[in-house]
Amino acid sequence: MPRLRNDTFLRALLRQPTEYTPVWLMRQAGRYLPEYCETRKRAGSFLQLCKSPALACEVTLQPLSRFNLDAAILFSDILTVPDAMGLGLYFTEGEGPRFERPLREEWAIRDLSVPDPYSHLRYVTDAVGEIRRALAGSVPLIGFSGSPFTLACYMVEGGSSGDFRNVKTMIYDRPDLMHRILSVTAEAVTQYLNAQIESGAQAVMLFDTWGGCLSAAAYREFSLDYMCRIVAGLIRERDGQRIPSIVFTKGGGLWLEAIADTGCDAIGVDWTIDIGAARQRVGQRVALQGNLDPNVLFASPESIARETRAILDSFGPADTGHVFNLGHGISQFTPPDHVSVLVETVHDHSRRLRQGT
Amino acid sequence: MPRLRNDTFLRALLRQPTEYTPVWLMRQAGRYLPEYCETRKRAGSFLQLCKSPALACEVTLQPLSRFNLDAAILFSDILTVPDAMGLGLYFTEGEGPRFERPLREEWAIRDLSVPDPYSHLRYVTDAVGEIRRALAGSVPLIGFSGSPFTLACYMVEGGSSGDFRNVKTMIYDRPDLMHRILSVTAEAVTQYLNAQIESGAQAVMLFDTWGGCLSAAAYREFSLDYMCRIVAGLIRERDGQRIPSIVFTKGGGLWLEAIADTGCDAIGVDWTIDIGAARQRVGQRVALQGNLDPNVLFASPESIARETRAILDSFGPADTGHVFNLGHGISQFTPPDHVSVLVETVHDHSRRLRQGT
Repeated sequence: MPRLRNDTFLRALLRQPTEYTPVWLMRQAGRYLPEYCETRKRAGSFLQLCKSPALACEVTLQPLSRFNLDAAILFSDILTVPDAMGLGLYFTEGEGPRFERPLREEWAIRDLSVPDPYSHLRYVTDAVGEIRRALAGSVPLIGFSGSPFTLACYMVEGGSSGDFRNVKTMIYDRPDLMHRILSVTAEAVTQYLNAQIESGAQAVMLFDTWGGCLSAAAYREFSLDYMCRIVAGLIRERDGQRIPSIVFTKGGGLWLEAIADTGCDAIGVDWTIDIGAARQRVGQRVALQGNLDPNVLFASPESIARETRAILDSFGPADTGHVFNLGHGISQFTPPDHVSVLVETVHDHSRRLRQGT
Repeated sequence: MPRLRNDTFLRALLRQPTEYTPVWLMRQAGRYLPEYCETRKRAGSFLQLCKSPALACEVTLQPLSRFNLDAAILFSDILTVPDAMGLGLYFTEGEGPRFERPLREEWAIRDLSVPDPYSHLRYVTDAVGEIRRALAGSVPLIGFSGSPFTLACYMVEGGSSGDFRNVKTMIYDRPDLMHRILSVTAEAVTQYLNAQIESGAQAVMLFDTWGGCLSAAAYREFSLDYMCRIVAGLIRERDGQRIPSIVFTKGGGLWLEAIADTGCDAIGVDWTIDIGAARQRVGQRVALQGNLDPNVLFASPESIARETRAILDSFGPADTGHVFNLGHGISQFTPPDHVSVLVETVHDHSRRLRQGT
């Protein structure tokens, strides 16, 4: 593999000094880009796009040719693991992901087993390898997975849910069954992320999209503990390079100290917490990734630049430990030009802060 | 007016000792009760139900005949104020509330004015008087309003929204217009709540359902500051009785200290924060109201009792400053029998805690 020319993102995650604050965006390869929509149309469906390593590679690279981003992220879906477990992932127009066989019966839960990432998820590891080669050392590649609890939400509800009624009823009435789902899923996610690392991912991120819907006690028991188990099982170094891990619980601002205890290198934070306050709370233990409200990207270029600078200013003048990102995935309705404003502002303003001007 | 026989709720809000922890439930008069559905059908529509003082009184009292609740809450909609401002509230099946004339044009925003609560909202003050008489001193009556920011979300978006794109674009690009909407609305809400107090409401609550979607800085500027203004303008005493105020921002757990600074008597908290931790953060400054996840009510009676006791235990053995509630409105799919389990457990267990047994 060629030597990495821009390792700013990796150094920031490891709290090493950088010349500027690196930036990437959750869901940066996506529907707000016309070229993505074109490739997706060519693929036939979202799932076929995910399952074709060549096309997944193509869309992964698209935002990098438009914007001066400091990392690429594997294009994939968070529900690949339960799909590989045999639940039958499919997508409906307007309703998002669904499973043909949601987990409602005790026998089905007892039957769950860890899929071999190199056979059932081969399309992902192949994509990782292909993307890594295509990046040719320009920027690092992030691998990712949904968190066990977030995957369990979809597995038990059978799709998106407004209130997570089934998953919460299981938590309160049959915690043994929920722990069984989460144990198998945590092991599957660990193997899946390690396979991505072995295939070329240079950092990994856990997306805990739904952990924030839990009570404080349930979050620890049913989401955080399993992310902790995963972080402990990750490959820490590859080819002499440390592989940093990022844990992101949307709505997890109350629990930052506990998230830092997982052993991750960085915490993703959404926009509801002031990033300066978050930094004070976690101190030097972890880096922080975030945290612009994606809706700021609907405002004018001047407003985008002002809000972006406000986050950099709030994080403080340090030259270490901050990766700029949105607080959640970019909206499909975002004007692509607005993303350029964000990226340029992060780079320019963070350089200026380091120079004390 | 007859003397109040059960003032446990009011005393708890004022952090005075009580023999047990009082309990009521957000949206306790609602679709999970067959008798409510029957009255609503008779009314013709939800809005006609809200606008008929006799029927609003009828449904307000329904949960009190089933459950041993310690407070009644006026049955109404949070969008009555913008409706009285002329935005034209209506309801569509499955999509919730909508406005015929959402606020998108500068002239319409400049034209906004404070409605006289005794003419345009007479149906509400009439309902408050009628309910208060019907309660006949059994339990206190809570009046309420949506917070200015939450009302502005609906006024600008024209209805419910997934991402609050229009309201956030206005916040970032035209804060002057958003402040104009919020100023007028805050004055309208102050007059509206004071009219409810003058008509018989014995406590008032501000529902800030959507403040939690904002960044920390935007929350202070666009939601909290206006709730602060309202609390400062409320009638504090009536017939020699203090009128306590409750401020509830869903997802506001990060901002408890700032919410306590509004001058409110109590903070409503959702289930994402441990209520014992919340109590430690606010100390003796305010009472707390909450915070069971409404989804717990789908679990078995044993699980409901266990989770209810856990919240009482976490709040601690004190006999003051806690009003038990859900962390959000009760679901329409809740089995009514499960509510009995909750209410009985709160009363029994909190008496036991006070007796140290």
